[in-house]
Amino acid sequence: MALTLTPLPGLPLVQPGDDLSELILAGLDRAALRLQEDDILVLAQKIVSKAEGRIVRLADVTPGARAIELAQATQKDARLVELILAESREVVRYRPGLIVVEHRLGFVCANAGIDHSNVAEGDDCYLLLPDNPDDSAARLRAELRAASGKRTGVVIIDSHGRAWRTGTVGVAIGLAGMPGCEDLRGQPDLFGYELQATEVGVADELAAAASLMMGQAAEGTPVVHVRGFPYPAREGALSELLRDKGRDLFR
Amino acid sequence: MALTLTPLPGLPLVQPGDDLSELILAGLDRAALRLQEDDILVLAQKIVSKAEGRIVRLADVTPGARAIELAQATQKDARLVELILAESREVVRYRPGLIVVEHRLGFVCANAGIDHSNVAEGDDCYLLLPDNPDDSAARLRAELRAASGKRTGVVIIDSHGRAWRTGTVGVAIGLAGMPGCEDLRGQPDLFGYELQATEVGVADELAAAASLMMGQAAEGTPVVHVRGFPYPAREGALSELLRDKGRDLFR
Repeated sequence: MALTLTPLPGLPLVQPGDDLSELILAGLDRAALRLQEDDILVLAQKIVSKAEGRIVRLADVTPGARAIELAQATQKDARLVELILAESREVVRYRPGLIVVEHRLGFVCANAGIDHSNVAEGDDCYLLLPDNPDDSAARLRAELRAASGKRTGVVIIDSHGRAWRTGTVGVAIGLAGMPGCEDLRGQPDLFGYELQATEVGVADELAAAASLMMGQAAEGTPVVHVRGFPYPAREGALSELLRDKGRDLFR
Repeated sequence: MALTLTPLPGLPLVQPGDDLSELILAGLDRAALRLQEDDILVLAQKIVSKAEGRIVRLADVTPGARAIELAQATQKDARLVELILAESREVVRYRPGLIVVEHRLGFVCANAGIDHSNVAEGDDCYLLLPDNPDDSAARLRAELRAASGKRTGVVIIDSHGRAWRTGTVGVAIGLAGMPGCEDLRGQPDLFGYELQATEVGVADELAAAASLMMGQAAEGTPVVHVRGFPYPAREGALSELLRDKGRDLFR
């Protein structure tokens, strides 16, 4: 059985209030794909955030003292730093140009995932991550099921840097109807040893795969259809993929 | 254009000295796949290491003082710790059960990538990573080209943990004939902004995708055929994916 990832062609630029399930179903039609049970839709965070209206104008932001201080240390706009701090639980590291935070959603990422790229409204607009990406994925899943009759999985992804490797990779920031992390421990391998390091970040592996097909600039392909995901569908959540802070050796 | 990943069925257990290109070509035949230009073969590290005879018996290892000390702190076999240290440039972190190192190949990983799972020769055997996975990939690529006439890419992958997320994901540890990291900076997005964080770890994204189709216990599917990789073929190397230590905020 093969895994097939198909970017949906011709999606329009998403605007606040747009119905993503309608856009996706139309994109599937254009790709001549009919949803099947256990298919997965992978969405770039940006279109979810835009549909949910998570756009902030810098002109509307007043930086506090902490943001002003951190902005000086990082050579960033203090209003943007204010937004980053408001979306974060903790600043983990910073250097000029970069603030690594624990996001309020629980993962560690650069600049709280806030981006000005690809926002239509103007130069001083920034896009925050969805309020609750697991909920966004679950809603979209329910809408797709209502429209198609099929139970699909949904993953919302973003591109994150890694501690020790260059280049970003796609990672899951919200999911529904599919596993986040699968624990294969205790399954014997071919020679009867118990497998050791066998918690597998399956939703992140799929996020990376889909990210390949989205590119970075490709606003036109922010949705990828997946068929052949090899793990059984189940309820899933971002929390499966987040390391407990007490077991984090790298803060 | 879709990305399609097909695990090759029916590969035999690899033994030291085996010709991987022969095994892969036979597996492609069984999958009814004919190599095309720009197809990519993704190989699990274990079969490359085994074919290259990178197997060490613990009984042949004498731990030094440093290994004995670190073994006590981590509750590991001192002979295994000796192997880990011999394969590493630096110990980055440790706790009971885990030693995170900078591997001699330049990446940060747990236990120097040394594994006893799936080694046939006996309980006290461990498998080291290939001596030079970029070279292994280049050799295999040349053999596949000689046999098929097609220029393919080759990636050798392993499963690595992440600093802040649970679960392992597939990452590239050696590659040939395809990019490791692609720098998209300077390309304008749809609204004319320059993209910012746009070094993309494309070989790692593909490694994660292929890892999904290998599973962890699946000795039977250590090779995945990829068609539709969206970045142009070129010379590539693991080094593209390694963060310069001077820019590493997390050691």
